[in-house]
This record gives sequence, C-alpha cells and structure tokens, in this order.
Amino acid sequence: MKLDDKGILIVISGPSGVGKGTVRSALFQMGGHDLVYSISMTTRKPRVNEVHGREYYFVSHEEFENYIEEGKMLEYAEFVDHYYGTPYDKVKQQLDSGKEVVLEIEVQGASQVREKMKDAILIFIAPPSMEDLYKRLTTRGTESQEVIQARIEKAKREINLAYMYDYIVVNDTVENAADKIMAIIRAEHAKVERTIHKYKEMLEVNK
Amino acid sequence: MKLDDKGILIVISGPSGVGKGTVRSALFQMGGHDLVYSISMTTRKPRVNEVHGREYYFVSHEEFENYIEEGKMLEYAEFVDHYYGTPYDKVKQQLDSGKEVVLEIEVQGASQVREKMKDAILIFIAPPSMEDLYKRLTTRGTESQEVIQARIEKAKREINLAYMYDYIVVNDTVENAADKIMAIIRAEHAKVERTIHKYKEMLEVNK
Repeated sequence: MKLDDKGILIVISGPSGVGKGTVRSALFQMGGHDLVYSISMTTRKPRVNEVHGREYYFVSHEEFENYIEEGKMLEYAEFVDHYYGTPYDKVKQQLDSGKEVVLEIEVQGASQVREKMKDAILIFIAPPSMEDLYKRLTTRGTESQEVIQARIEKAKREINLAYMYDYIVVNDTVENAADKIMAIIRAEHAKVERTIHKYKEMLEVNK
Repeated sequence: MKLDDKGILIVISGPSGVGKGTVRSALFQMGGHDLVYSISMTTRKPRVNEVHGREYYFVSHEEFENYIEEGKMLEYAEFVDHYYGTPYDKVKQQLDSGKEVVLEIEVQGASQVREKMKDAILIFIAPPSMEDLYKRLTTRGTESQEVIQARIEKAKREINLAYMYDYIVVNDTVENAADKIMAIIRAEHAKVERTIHKYKEMLEVNK
C-alpha cells in the first residue's frame, strides 16, 4: 500500500569516472518500479539520430538563458560553450503524476538541486577505493597524464562534497549499487514526513 | 561494501492488534541479514520451558528497580504488577558487534527509546484501515464489548503518535511489511551520517 501519491526526485551523482551511468542503467533494468529519466535541456545542436524531447530538449542559447533568468532551471552548467541543465517544470509534472524522476548529474548540479528541492534524495555514488577510481579514469581513453591528474584532483574535491548528500552508495558492483538505490527509494516512501498526512486521512482518526 | 561497522537499533512498534509480532517473525525468516532479537528483562516468574536469557532475563523486583534508578533501562513498562523492559547494556553490546538489534515493543516504550537513542530507527506498523484493526481486536478472544472498546480507543491514541516515528509501514500483507522493513534497514546503512566518516577514512582523501 502506497501512502505517498507523489514521486520522489532521485539525484544520482558522484565524481566523474565512478560509473554513474552504468548504475543508472542497471537501476532502470530492474523491475517493479515507476522510474523515469529526466530529459535535459541543451543549447548544443542535435547529432544524427538525436530527437528533440528524447535525448534532449534542444533550445537556442537565448531560450536557455531566459529559463535561467526566470528561475526555471532546477540545475544547469556550461560545458565547452554550451549549456546543459534540467528544466524544473518537466520534472514537477512527472513527480505530480506519481513517477520517480531520476537525474544523473555532476556534483555541481547536485548542489543546485539541494538548494532548490529540499525533499529530493541525493545519492552519492562512490568508488570503492581511490585506486579503483584512478584505474577507471586512466583506462578510459588516450588522455595525457596532465588531463588524468586534473581529473583525479577534481574527483578528490568532489568526494569531499559527499557530506552534502543524503546517502553514500559504494559502486563495488553495479548490481549491489542499483539494488541499494532501489531499497533507498522504497524506504523513502515509508518516511513519516511523506506518509503521515495521507495515512491519517485514510484512517480518519482525527474525525 | 559496508561503510558502517555498527548495527542499528530497529524498533518495531504500533497499536496493539496490528500484528507486530507476525511482521517481526517474517522479518527474521528472511535471509541475508544479521538481525538479533533483543531479550527483555522481567520481574514475573518464568513459566515452564522458559529459560533465563532466552525468553527473558528473569530478575527480582528490587533488581529491576535498581536498573531503573541507575538509568540502565532503555525502556520499560509495568503490566499487571510486573515490570517488563529492555536493559541498555545488552543492546549496546550487540550493536557494537555489528548486529542489527530488533525491539518489538508498545508505543509507550518506543517513545522512551526515541528520547534515549537518537539514532535508533522507529518503525510504526500501521493497520491498512480502522475496520481491519477492529476485526483483529474483536476476533482475538472472548473479551467483552467494553474491553474491546477500550482497546480501540487506545489504538486510536497510539495511531495519533505515529508522527514521532521515522517510518510508517502499513501491514497490508505480512510479506510486504517485512520486505519494506528490510529495505529501510539497508537504506539506513547508506545514510550519509552513518557512512561519511568511515568512507573518508577508507579513501584517505583528507590526507
């Protein structure tokens, strides 16, 4: 029995290289849930096969900046001259319809969500060890030692921001991590703050 | 990977007649956990087949009152001239050894635990409807209408105390309820307050 009509905004974040995307995919492949993935908005041009409203909402630079100015972005960032972010209204629609909205974003974006939506759940995906993270960062491509070193330093700074999150889930195996996130979602729906009003209404104890 | 060496004190409580005992049994029958049941202390005499340290710690009235005076009881209550309660030291020993300690107690006892152990998890087992609770309370035995009415009034007062708990788990089916409690325990172990210190130590990011 569900005592909570609304969905929960679940933010999956963590240092780059930790495997956020893989964990998120595994989560969506699990059954028995009503998860939806939030579609980001961007100012970059669509690639071949990318469809507006599927991979991204593709908008102009001006349009994106209007969203920012009007406070309509839940979180956003600029990478290589393009904006990427999450429009608030789309997320709200989905939450109101009872869906769990999953955002997979960088640590910087997660701190913006923390400010704007107090009842979002922030989950920090953490590497099982620094060695593990180094390995993931170095075996990725053909980057120079300098680029890799810069990434490691960034990852360390991001790990120091883990205290701002609600949960830390160690990505020791993708299955474990996805499983733990599912347990977190189920537990959060039973939290007294989310359930008490509906529950009392249901029982009509206050009559 | 576990970032939390210590066990968590899990208090299963709720109005009488809601089926706390059945939910607790179902929880213990599930696999993959390290749950232990806390043994209560009482001043009543052992029945045939009851063993000291298995069903209860059987102590004298004087001994129990010494425990109370010295602040050594996590919670206690008096029923029909006998004391029943949970000695704090036994619970602490088990928590320190990494076991999850489960207490199944009345609402009155749960509020005492709330005061004394801030990091205990309080789970309110709730009936799916008042009709359901009435049915459970009336089909129990051969009590008079007056006794039943008194129990219903007590249950209503107890339901009004649900806000004091951390989670509300509706006992719609015993399996659902036990399953949800297990998700809560897993999620709580990933909570940032319980994990951040150990995690940072592990990564040695602060070095």
